[in-house]
Amino acid sequence: MNALIVLAHPEVKSYNAALARATQDGLQRQGHEVHLSDLYAQAFAPDEHGRHFPRRANPLRFDAQSEQRFSAGRNALPHEVRKELDALLWADLLVLQFPLWWFGMPAILKGWMDRVFVYGKLYSSRRRFHSGVCAGKRAMLSVTAGSSSDACAPDGKEGDTRLILWPIHYALHYVGFTVLEPLIVTDVRGGRSGSDAERQKLLLELRLREQGTIFESIDGRPAIAFNDPDDWDELGKLKPDAPVHSPFIGHERWSRTGA
Amino acid sequence: MNALIVLAHPEVKSYNAALARATQDGLQRQGHEVHLSDLYAQAFAPDEHGRHFPRRANPLRFDAQSEQRFSAGRNALPHEVRKELDALLWADLLVLQFPLWWFGMPAILKGWMDRVFVYGKLYSSRRRFHSGVCAGKRAMLSVTAGSSSDACAPDGKEGDTRLILWPIHYALHYVGFTVLEPLIVTDVRGGRSGSDAERQKLLLELRLREQGTIFESIDGRPAIAFNDPDDWDELGKLKPDAPVHSPFIGHERWSRTGA
Repeated sequence: MNALIVLAHPEVKSYNAALARATQDGLQRQGHEVHLSDLYAQAFAPDEHGRHFPRRANPLRFDAQSEQRFSAGRNALPHEVRKELDALLWADLLVLQFPLWWFGMPAILKGWMDRVFVYGKLYSSRRRFHSGVCAGKRAMLSVTAGSSSDACAPDGKEGDTRLILWPIHYALHYVGFTVLEPLIVTDVRGGRSGSDAERQKLLLELRLREQGTIFESIDGRPAIAFNDPDDWDELGKLKPDAPVHSPFIGHERWSRTGA
Repeated sequence: MNALIVLAHPEVKSYNAALARATQDGLQRQGHEVHLSDLYAQAFAPDEHGRHFPRRANPLRFDAQSEQRFSAGRNALPHEVRKELDALLWADLLVLQFPLWWFGMPAILKGWMDRVFVYGKLYSSRRRFHSGVCAGKRAMLSVTAGSSSDACAPDGKEGDTRLILWPIHYALHYVGFTVLEPLIVTDVRGGRSGSDAERQKLLLELRLREQGTIFESIDGRPAIAFNDPDDWDELGKLKPDAPVHSPFIGHERWSRTGA
């Protein structure tokens, strides 16, 4: 198996960077080929912008989707986008490693998605969801949060972190990935007082040692359920008798059928 | 009233840019002071990074929150962050104008949040939510989506766009804002065939003319409900008898009490 790990943290000595290396080690121990793409190390530009496209379909008015398709069709995508896209197409497993900042990805990783999920190459109106370019590949988020496990739980003040990740999971599902249940490490900023801080430090070290082991047995990891193509009518509305696999879809029905 | 509009679109001739100008016009007609911050025009760097902090609390290991607090306390924040932060503190109303890219903000706007929502200045562990620095101020999203109104509806394939915006709304609530119901314009990429495309173009022009009028009567716009401070116990868990104002919190209870 080929695996691509995309790391989005500005500090090489960070806990996130250590988790990414532990993931790499665990996968390599199983004989997999691993590529680690460190977005900060390569100074990946997060802003989708006309300057990235010297050959333009329309030089007078920049439209991201149109220019992505135009350049993709002429093998003229920006070098750093081509590189990331090739790694993505090569990989059977994608792991995104990042800290939760403001209930989402750090901007550099959002920009990786904005730029590398190329219209006309990774998706089109005909190649989406179950018929997406990445169908058959698996993707997984490995996330850290500064808040406590209580506050990140389904009844927690920070919101259920697993559900907060849903828009990202849905974007991965959109391009065809099978999305595995995420890894979420809470309390990464440690405890506040002496013995509490010491205990939390030990827990984080222990968790880091487990990371490789988790990826050694990745094949048994459950996937997140999404609605089937047949659950939608021709307008893209959920059929009345379909189950609901999202807090964002048919929320009157979510608590009855949602996982 | 003072209003700050933050625009995140790479094309000055875009529909998003036109909506931002219409918002500005509508507010000015009511006699309000308006500042428009065009993130692409000022080449705002979206990636929170050690290079933005020449004076460091810890030169050996970059931690965004620690360095934000350190620089904020020494009046040494990066110039472009200081500028945006001053505008934010000056404003009584914040409007974020952006296209929905991959179920979230374009990276440049996420980076504005990552960098300008400064720890130790705009929030701290004591100043959050109802006691946040922005308490008493209002914020509002004005968003465009390429998908159809059917697909963006509560039972739509793209997910209920209003709920997809919830992580962004919650981040604004976190720093204290009263969050108004968002404006969502769907189908902005227009119809596909001749008469359909023509009709959609006219609808978008009509909607653009309404934008200013909407902001002329902004005072009557309803706010999004969030849970009260008293709804949480000391661990940050929702009390059993509290209502639920989020698809991410207590989702077993969401459909029964959620708005």
